[in-house]
Amino acid sequence: MYESARIGIVSISDRATSGVYEDQGLPALKTWLGQTLCNPLEFEARLIADIQADIEATLRDLAERCCLVLTTGGTGPAPRDVTPEATLAVADKVLPGFGEQMRAVSLKYVPTAILSRQVGVVRGSCLILNLPGQPKAIQETLDGVFAAVPYCIDLIGGPYLETRGEVVRAFRPKSALRPPAGA
Amino acid sequence: MYESARIGIVSISDRATSGVYEDQGLPALKTWLGQTLCNPLEFEARLIADIQADIEATLRDLAERCCLVLTTGGTGPAPRDVTPEATLAVADKVLPGFGEQMRAVSLKYVPTAILSRQVGVVRGSCLILNLPGQPKAIQETLDGVFAAVPYCIDLIGGPYLETRGEVVRAFRPKSALRPPAGA
Amino acid sequence: MYESARIGIVSISDRATSGVYEDQGLPALKTWLGQTLCNPLEFEARLIADIQADIEATLRDLAERCCLVLTTGGTGPAPRDVTPEATLAVADKVLPGFGEQMRAVSLKYVPTAILSRQVGVVRGSCLILNLPGQPKAIQETLDGVFAAVPYCIDLIGGPYLETRGEVVRAFRPKSALRPPAGA
Repeated sequence: MYESARIGIVSISDRATSGVYEDQGLPALKTWLGQTLCNPLEFEARLIADIQADIEATLRDLAERCCLVLTTGGTGPAPRDVTPEATLAVADKVLPGFGEQMRAVSLKYVPTAILSRQVGVVRGSCLILNLPGQPKAIQETLDGVFAAVPYCIDLIGGPYLETRGEVVRAFRPKSALRPPAGA
Repeated sequence: MYESARIGIVSISDRATSGVYEDQGLPALKTWLGQTLCNPLEFEARLIADIQADIEATLRDLAERCCLVLTTGGTGPAPRDVTPEATLAVADKVLPGFGEQMRAVSLKYVPTAILSRQVGVVRGSCLILNLPGQPKAIQETLDGVFAAVPYCIDLIGGPYLETRGEVVRAFRPKSALRPPAGA
Repeated sequence: MYESARIGIVSISDRATSGVYEDQGLPALKTWLGQTLCNPLEFEARLIADIQADIEATLRDLAERCCLVLTTGGTGPAPRDVTPEATLAVADKVLPGFGEQMRAVSLKYVPTAILSRQVGVVRGSCLILNLPGQPKAIQETLDGVFAAVPYCIDLIGGPYLETRGEVVRAFRPKSALRPPAGA
């Protein structure tokens, strides 16, 4: 038996919000997380426009109940891209390694990965990660960094997450290993 | 026919400004850009001392008319090196991927690339990049990151830049491809 | 004859400070530096708790007399980890390349290297670097970045450090090479 985990997923896009196209970010996040984590998951999903105050309010709200919040969209250099600004505004601690490594992973696929300003931060006992907008890039990025996520959530006081080793193998230092709750 | 592009090039050096040695930064920037871009280029060149207020004023001025400003010099750890401070002070958005990737590229040549504090930022519809001081390092760095520059300038509202593929192949996502203006 | 160098080493850990376990950070730092540097070394060693004000006071004090201060511990995402916050608070200049490269080096060994928030900064004529907490990770990280440290210390006005080439070969641009003082 694994602990259940509440995860916030937030798609940030003016065009998807106004119906110009259908959001593909939330389904991509849900699918990837469902395939990767062994824990029973409760999702809180939000689709919002590229408005900094709204993004901040959403992140503040979700961080109260979720151990992990993943955002998609709004991390580029265009004037309307404000997801990193909103994420930094609600951060207790910035984890620069997530931004660096997510860009390094994407750079293997496209040279314009340099332009992403995505960040990873801790707010209370919630880890917030900005992901790219495209479903393929979401998957590539999560494949590249998620191994470090369960131990990070241990350290900030969240539930013990277990991954399916064939997708991503969660890494914990030997001193931190413990059996799943209830096992 | 390609749109013309106005580009600011700024060499920042106490010693070159005071005549201790001849500036090599501006010619290196001009040569590299002329060989790489297909667009007709209009350069605005400045040679200034390592004085933060002067650098900021120069960047503010050039960013009003240029889609791209490249600086050379003043990015190290010495007390007189203040180019990154000045660049951050005029930034609307910081693009951390440029600094990371420029250092990663230089690190293939010299371990002291770690010491460079160069940044890339957006101000209005202008991209500003700090480059190293040495002509050889300028070329290596631009070779390593320029593929992402034309698409960045698209996203912030600048002219459509085209590169000569044998030097650097500009990368744009398929959804962003369009024929050169007037073609 | 080599100039002597004063180096601050600071182990930051609630548990080592309160006697829960024995500090291994200070011995690891001392051993690595003694094996690597040719200069006669004078160490100033401190073992302190994860209290931001205390870390800041210690760094301010040591930076007045030391050309280099190495810290170990307190760089993770947990609420008590505040070493980077303290280091940034006393910084004149941040050198982002050190954090990036230290994480990149550690990432070859463990995926959770992403979670380290370690930074490198200059305060006056002192370079301050945050290192991981484990002796093995301290050694791996120093092996990976120390080649750039002597030239950095040249640039900020410190003593001319020489390394034993079989451990780490200090790198200086040709224009900066000079014989050791007194040689």
